[in-house]
Amino acid sequence: MGLFSKDIETMDNLFVHQLQDVYYAEKQIHKSLPKMIEKATDPSLKQGLEAHRTETQGHIARLEQVFKQHGAEAKAVNCPAIDGILEEADEVAGEVADKRVLDAAIIAAAQAVEHYEIARYGTLVAWAKQLGRDDCAALLQQNLDEEHSADDKLTKLAESGINRKAA
Amino acid sequence: MGLFSKDIETMDNLFVHQLQDVYYAEKQIHKSLPKMIEKATDPSLKQGLEAHRTETQGHIARLEQVFKQHGAEAKAVNCPAIDGILEEADEVAGEVADKRVLDAAIIAAAQAVEHYEIARYGTLVAWAKQLGRDDCAALLQQNLDEEHSADDKLTKLAESGINRKAA
Repeated sequence: MGLFSKDIETMDNLFVHQLQDVYYAEKQIHKSLPKMIEKATDPSLKQGLEAHRTETQGHIARLEQVFKQHGAEAKAVNCPAIDGILEEADEVAGEVADKRVLDAAIIAAAQAVEHYEIARYGTLVAWAKQLGRDDCAALLQQNLDEEHSADDKLTKLAESGINRKAA
Repeated sequence: MGLFSKDIETMDNLFVHQLQDVYYAEKQIHKSLPKMIEKATDPSLKQGLEAHRTETQGHIARLEQVFKQHGAEAKAVNCPAIDGILEEADEVAGEVADKRVLDAAIIAAAQAVEHYEIARYGTLVAWAKQLGRDDCAALLQQNLDEEHSADDKLTKLAESGINRKAA
């Protein structure tokens, strides 16, 4: 279910629904990362993805805290967007001859995931503030900051030679 | 088809495949925007989405130029990621009681689309440079800059009161 079902009438409904959407997304990402980690060959990339998996656990815990603070049920709703993004990432299982080309493809897939989360958390922080939930906004901002930082690290990895060696 | 099919062996293959992926995405976005424009109620939002639809035509034309410069076929490959993102956006068709809540939801959907494109063009610019295709990188950078700018405008719209009024 996406953002626009008929039971969404207020900004509060919309906020809770988007929380449920990103809660689902984080859980799916947490499930998908081991496959990407296994496929990655560059040690810094592997390590970066491992670290992000741990961070993702923290994001899930923070989201559960936001649900609690807001008095809403910590429920995940299906989100075709992250399913589609991860479907592409999952195809890492396909064989790519050159390991460095595979690493470059993994970085690209991981950055698409990060950007999805950056968009969602950016929206959630803005809505939390508008709803007067600065306590929720502060927690969501922490997740947003970590997603930005994960994306920056992936950009540096991509630029630092993994891709260059593959070219 | 995602990024990781078996026929991708070199960075050049990967670059062309990702070009085809984003070419498909831009075409799907161009098709989807009229529905979002129709649903939007705030005049600045409507106008912003209209302007972005025109920009999207320009992005498609630039991609065709990149294909040509690189000697590759301008072909679109299915991309489950953008399909999923647009599936959520399409659900704007669902009825939301408060028009301003709907506008807030449309902005959120459009920003998810922008971030997908930002991730893809960021990767493409980096790969084009690594492949020594500065001519392609320059064109892709123009698309990237316009996506960033579209995202910034949506953030301003969201902060400037559409969402606040709906809260």
